[in-house]
Amino acid sequence: MQPEADDETKDTPPANARVMLSGVHNKLAFDRLLFFSDAVFAIAITFLALDLRLPEGEAGHPIGDAELWQKLGELWPKYLSFLVSFLVIGLYWQGHHRMFRLINRFDDRLVWINLLFLLCIVVIPFPTTVLGEHANAPAAVILYAGVLALTGLLQAAMWLYATHHSRLVDTTLEASLYRHLVRVVTARMLAAPLVFLASMALASHSPDWAKYSWMLIAPALALTSWIGRKVPAAEKLK
Amino acid sequence: MQPEADDETKDTPPANARVMLSGVHNKLAFDRLLFFSDAVFAIAITFLALDLRLPEGEAGHPIGDAELWQKLGELWPKYLSFLVSFLVIGLYWQGHHRMFRLINRFDDRLVWINLLFLLCIVVIPFPTTVLGEHANAPAAVILYAGVLALTGLLQAAMWLYATHHSRLVDTTLEASLYRHLVRVVTARMLAAPLVFLASMALASHSPDWAKYSWMLIAPALALTSWIGRKVPAAEKLK
Amino acid sequence: MQPEADDETKDTPPANARVMLSGVHNKLAFDRLLFFSDAVFAIAITFLALDLRLPEGEAGHPIGDAELWQKLGELWPKYLSFLVSFLVIGLYWQGHHRMFRLINRFDDRLVWINLLFLLCIVVIPFPTTVLGEHANAPAAVILYAGVLALTGLLQAAMWLYATHHSRLVDTTLEASLYRHLVRVVTARMLAAPLVFLASMALASHSPDWAKYSWMLIAPALALTSWIGRKVPAAEKLK
Amino acid sequence: MQPEADDETKDTPPANARVMLSGVHNKLAFDRLLFFSDAVFAIAITFLALDLRLPEGEAGHPIGDAELWQKLGELWPKYLSFLVSFLVIGLYWQGHHRMFRLINRFDDRLVWINLLFLLCIVVIPFPTTVLGEHANAPAAVILYAGVLALTGLLQAAMWLYATHHSRLVDTTLEASLYRHLVRVVTARMLAAPLVFLASMALASHSPDWAKYSWMLIAPALALTSWIGRKVPAAEKLK
Repeated sequence: MQPEADDETKDTPPANARVMLSGVHNKLAFDRLLFFSDAVFAIAITFLALDLRLPEGEAGHPIGDAELWQKLGELWPKYLSFLVSFLVIGLYWQGHHRMFRLINRFDDRLVWINLLFLLCIVVIPFPTTVLGEHANAPAAVILYAGVLALTGLLQAAMWLYATHHSRLVDTTLEASLYRHLVRVVTARMLAAPLVFLASMALASHSPDWAKYSWMLIAPALALTSWIGRKVPAAEKLK
Repeated sequence: MQPEADDETKDTPPANARVMLSGVHNKLAFDRLLFFSDAVFAIAITFLALDLRLPEGEAGHPIGDAELWQKLGELWPKYLSFLVSFLVIGLYWQGHHRMFRLINRFDDRLVWINLLFLLCIVVIPFPTTVLGEHANAPAAVILYAGVLALTGLLQAAMWLYATHHSRLVDTTLEASLYRHLVRVVTARMLAAPLVFLASMALASHSPDWAKYSWMLIAPALALTSWIGRKVPAAEKLK
Repeated sequence: MQPEADDETKDTPPANARVMLSGVHNKLAFDRLLFFSDAVFAIAITFLALDLRLPEGEAGHPIGDAELWQKLGELWPKYLSFLVSFLVIGLYWQGHHRMFRLINRFDDRLVWINLLFLLCIVVIPFPTTVLGEHANAPAAVILYAGVLALTGLLQAAMWLYATHHSRLVDTTLEASLYRHLVRVVTARMLAAPLVFLASMALASHSPDWAKYSWMLIAPALALTSWIGRKVPAAEKLK
Repeated sequence: MQPEADDETKDTPPANARVMLSGVHNKLAFDRLLFFSDAVFAIAITFLALDLRLPEGEAGHPIGDAELWQKLGELWPKYLSFLVSFLVIGLYWQGHHRMFRLINRFDDRLVWINLLFLLCIVVIPFPTTVLGEHANAPAAVILYAGVLALTGLLQAAMWLYATHHSRLVDTTLEASLYRHLVRVVTARMLAAPLVFLASMALASHSPDWAKYSWMLIAPALALTSWIGRKVPAAEKLK
């Protein structure tokens, strides 16, 4: 139930430690960590849409209706990369949300792994824009898949760090059930980054196939869900 | 009172399930869902205003006072589309706020319907900008009304999903009163999207009349409020 | 103690009403209103800084150190308008924060007055940019002072709406003390908008004097604080 | 336990004061202060990434893959300045987070010191962009180090203000332990700003060495952590 997990706690006079970390404030510190993360997610997800805009220089010059439809249509690579990024950030947000239903305290290392994960999240609009503008360039596909893979891998690292030897979780789950649960959630977290990693190898041969391969994330997630259903408690964190 | 609504709960050893989903953490997970949504609303509503700016290239060149007034005046289509979008996002935020005073738990599907709804919310600044720049083009009016209609329809879908067979609500309301309440709130949620849908048909004939027709949202909302007043409990969620 | 203030409550079967509006959920609805407002404040305050940038077209071209200092120096009207807007939004945020330490429930009208107030808050970066670019144009000064005055007046209107006949406050303060308190906080809220209104009249004669006059906000606030100190309870909301 | 710290409290009839500041509302006011700050941090940290973009004018013109790699590579000064700013804002966020695990109430002065601190936080993207574009100009290095030093010094001032004579903290820590704790946290807070200050002197001789010197922040932080470990309670706030 203690919001800080470190081994030094035992050396500290318990009375003092409890005063400084008592109830409300630790709860508040933990909440701030999550709300800060949520705010970063929310802003990154909204920034993606900033890239949706007609080419500049048109403003004020009345153009015909057909021409406007055409200009709107020409933006389709941007719509697509926006949509993919939105869905993947949504998936990562859901993973973060789910992960912190089991994790219930933090230490300095978790704060920094989380910050590096958020660094990747805020960077995502950059490769999204590059991909929207250069949809057929292998470089754009590799950059995009690389950033999204790294983001997912950092999330999995955060989960493994927190659950290793129950470091930052409090659970009375039976040991084998706990291990199953951790494995199923890990598998689910790795689905997207592994697909992105694999697509990077494809990209130099065929940027298009690399992009099509990202659709494999959906069946991969469905598969981990299906496996997870065999571990009853894992369902609860899905 | 359980924050997760799925039927598998019954198969799970209750002790384990309760530990993993105990009190504070489920409350926190539900709060995160709402605060994340609020942050997205807040950012989208603020992004609308980014479009209010004088045409670039003027900076630094001192221009006369009359010329500045004129330039500020020429932005009026942008002021109008900003105002309409702000009010509609405000209306949708109020709907979300109201809806989640009855909904008190979530499942994965609700999370994803909510994410799709938020996707529409973050997209809104894009058609708003297009409308501000091409106020008389049917394409701009249709795009704008289409995005705003879709947003409202997704919100109504979320409401219907959550309240169907009391899926994600806890209510001891008498059954017929509950049905009335759901219907009244649904009607209120559909007012804006139905007006926007109807205006899309008008737009190719007359973009102006399509835009004027949006003013019908106000009396439509007033009407649903007036009807709702006959269902005493519905008042509470208005 | 009820989070909704309307007279119809009495007509509602109390059992039902209580279920729908019970504890946690109303508290959450009220919190959402405030956190949504805070997020809007935070984003608007951060957007102000987006206007701080070197003129485009310089990127990549190495320029001398002296030239860079000069370019940074030439931005001073932008630094100033950023600073004034930041401080005024900070003041309005503090007013909102203070106001909602007495207000403890909401109704639909308060939600909409608050939305209109937030509309002004998100608009503020626009006149700030105009003023930073056309620091000597009466039009820029009038627009700026007008938007900031309107924002402050809406805040005062929200306060008067909520406290009128103790509409949305729960207080056991003695009646005359309560009236004093409301008056003192109202005076404090009106200080900035009244100075901005007055400066609008000055602006067409002398934009510079209009801008200097804004410095009167500081002594005006100090004066209301000094008066407020005579009403002991008012101190608590300062 | 009172959320407002001022000496006038004693003059106030305690019953009234308690009503106005009772439980929930003060807790909420304190939470708002922190969540508002977190939102500002989150937005500033995300805005940093807005500067990562290919030079405009490329959009739509298909360019070769090698050319795209080259353009992406040419952005490396931007990647570096983004990374440094992200890590430093992350460090300041962690400091704010840690500080408010001991601080448990606020007064008007703290609100304003915090606002000035946040002003610096929202400004950081500006010198970051300037540094990313003019990586070798002493002016850019001095501006950058100056803003980041000022930010850190304001944070240390906030900490000293709040802990001076236990002004805004409630602690039952033994007096000498409390003093040690305050000193260790102060030292940790001063590490980054002092390195930035020192680098400003270096910058006119060698912008590169000034930038390399920022890497000293890491060992300086490690040193304060190592010293802090000798004060058991300080560990808790690290």
